[in-house]
Amino acid sequence: MKNPQRHSLAPPLNAAAWLNTARPLTLSELRGKVVVIHAFQMLCPGCVTHGIPQASAIYELYRQEHVQVIGLHTVFEHHEVMTQAALAAFIHEYRIPFPVAIDRPSATGSVPHTMEAYQMQGTPTLIVLDKQGRVRLNQFGRMSDMQVGSFIGRLLEEETQAVDHSGEPDPVHDTGTHKCDEGGCSL
Amino acid sequence: MKNPQRHSLAPPLNAAAWLNTARPLTLSELRGKVVVIHAFQMLCPGCVTHGIPQASAIYELYRQEHVQVIGLHTVFEHHEVMTQAALAAFIHEYRIPFPVAIDRPSATGSVPHTMEAYQMQGTPTLIVLDKQGRVRLNQFGRMSDMQVGSFIGRLLEEETQAVDHSGEPDPVHDTGTHKCDEGGCSL
Amino acid sequence: MKNPQRHSLAPPLNAAAWLNTARPLTLSELRGKVVVIHAFQMLCPGCVTHGIPQASAIYELYRQEHVQVIGLHTVFEHHEVMTQAALAAFIHEYRIPFPVAIDRPSATGSVPHTMEAYQMQGTPTLIVLDKQGRVRLNQFGRMSDMQVGSFIGRLLEEETQAVDHSGEPDPVHDTGTHKCDEGGCSL
Amino acid sequence: MKNPQRHSLAPPLNAAAWLNTARPLTLSELRGKVVVIHAFQMLCPGCVTHGIPQASAIYELYRQEHVQVIGLHTVFEHHEVMTQAALAAFIHEYRIPFPVAIDRPSATGSVPHTMEAYQMQGTPTLIVLDKQGRVRLNQFGRMSDMQVGSFIGRLLEEETQAVDHSGEPDPVHDTGTHKCDEGGCSL
Repeated sequence: MKNPQRHSLAPPLNAAAWLNTARPLTLSELRGKVVVIHAFQMLCPGCVTHGIPQASAIYELYRQEHVQVIGLHTVFEHHEVMTQAALAAFIHEYRIPFPVAIDRPSATGSVPHTMEAYQMQGTPTLIVLDKQGRVRLNQFGRMSDMQVGSFIGRLLEEETQAVDHSGEPDPVHDTGTHKCDEGGCSL
Repeated sequence: MKNPQRHSLAPPLNAAAWLNTARPLTLSELRGKVVVIHAFQMLCPGCVTHGIPQASAIYELYRQEHVQVIGLHTVFEHHEVMTQAALAAFIHEYRIPFPVAIDRPSATGSVPHTMEAYQMQGTPTLIVLDKQGRVRLNQFGRMSDMQVGSFIGRLLEEETQAVDHSGEPDPVHDTGTHKCDEGGCSL
Repeated sequence: MKNPQRHSLAPPLNAAAWLNTARPLTLSELRGKVVVIHAFQMLCPGCVTHGIPQASAIYELYRQEHVQVIGLHTVFEHHEVMTQAALAAFIHEYRIPFPVAIDRPSATGSVPHTMEAYQMQGTPTLIVLDKQGRVRLNQFGRMSDMQVGSFIGRLLEEETQAVDHSGEPDPVHDTGTHKCDEGGCSL
Repeated sequence: MKNPQRHSLAPPLNAAAWLNTARPLTLSELRGKVVVIHAFQMLCPGCVTHGIPQASAIYELYRQEHVQVIGLHTVFEHHEVMTQAALAAFIHEYRIPFPVAIDRPSATGSVPHTMEAYQMQGTPTLIVLDKQGRVRLNQFGRMSDMQVGSFIGRLLEEETQAVDHSGEPDPVHDTGTHKCDEGGCSL
């Protein structure tokens, strides 16, 4: 794929808590792996019917390889009911096999910190980092399994190259009304 | 279908609250209609992926006919997070079009009152009452859409006959450990 | 369902041959049963992916009941390759469990005789006869499994009544160009 | 992926005819492209419901890239009805968008020449060649879309390297009875 250097280094995951893992993960320790971040909300129908199963399939297909799947619970609505305890029950019942970070809530708005730093448009969002920690995909809504497999396969095959650390992401985001449809929940 | 008289009159719905309806419904006021009760939990994967869409399809197919679809939130696990507020958000996000009753929690056990009165085995459970209020189907797990359509179609065509009020259901239930799999969550 | 008497008695099946059955079937010998006729072409994608599986599901659901499923191979295009031998191979490979009639080709046009007598618009078409042999459904294209189940369930529950033999169908049909899309192949 | 050099150079396609293309293709002219060969039979249910749609999805996803999708009609049963004319009608009705080669029938057995040269086990079979024409995948039956996408994505990213022309495939094959099930038709 063309010009990986022009892609920004991924902002850190700003997590209030981690579930389904013995200890928190950091992106910097995952250099050398392709990192797949599935941002979801447990009350987002498109996440539950499409995104979570796809993320679990990615986990299964690449579990022997240099791929780390991470769930990111980016609550931007119904904060009062999508609590850590509710998420823990959800992870248990849906048998999610990968670590899940709870995106740190904002003190001033509905959109949590990591979601804002990555300028996500809603849930589900699939973010894929290459082995050097650059954001190579940041996709709101559905992607086909074939597209996702193709994208990750290519990143796995890429040679590791020097990283250009300039070009930090520009964390601007308007927080307006949002709605869910079949595809997902948008900000 | 054979010998409808041998079926028991349905126990009343014992609801702590109703959502998605201007006022509570009673089974007795629904005599003359086929009543479809979809018992579910919002954290039951088999309910979310199969049961709720099927119940919504029943609602759509028969909305011009003498059929009343009712959701029944029968929480028997994770009580602390499947609250009324969480259910209200779930109903909103999943666009459930029919009234939903919250089964009244038991003071002494995990299984709520209506779930126990109907001796349900878990969620999802589909209960169908004929026009005279008798329990004609009480099915835990998946049924195909064709089976469900066939069953309701037959009940709609049945002539109304005299009801035998004897034969109350026997509300015995053991409340042990329970688990969820693809098909649903069993007691 | 309303006014079954106003429906026409079904025209006879005009078959050039029967497959998957020890002997030909006649509609008149099937009085007392609900008869489901699935009209298809083996090179019609909508028939292969939707219609045939649905007809097979009808066969399975009602095999212990008074329902007869019949396949009807109504070739109106590619006559030279959809031969009896090709159909026999198709029935074998797709494991079709019900009898299949080959609609008798027309000497003068592309539309075979039974297809014309029933005024079908293309394939797949689902035709359902009640226990007295009247055409109660004649539907081109897709119906949901729930609709089909509901329709057959109602007919099974109907009381047998006297038949009005007037009102023969009016076998007029224009044979123009035709095309296949996802839903099926239309005349 | 490891040691591409150990893979054999693909045997040539031995086609009796080509459809859906202005002129025959040769593997040697396709060096520099990833080549995806979908071997199928038009009367193989697993090919029609799974393999053909997957091959068409590959075609769509990679149509702007260095990927060539080729259908290969490898008839090993029902030869008398899976004729060139029948295949042409099939390609038209199923709107297959890529070139299709008809594998050359054997004078002595039921298995056609290319199928034997590649030692395929049945249909559908997915064969993928890298940019240097080596057989990197030869898979009978179903693969998930994610697996297929991942495999092709990796090959696209591979650097072109020198080819080891030794190691011709060993075309030994027993031709016994064969059968079709949901997954496909095996020799």
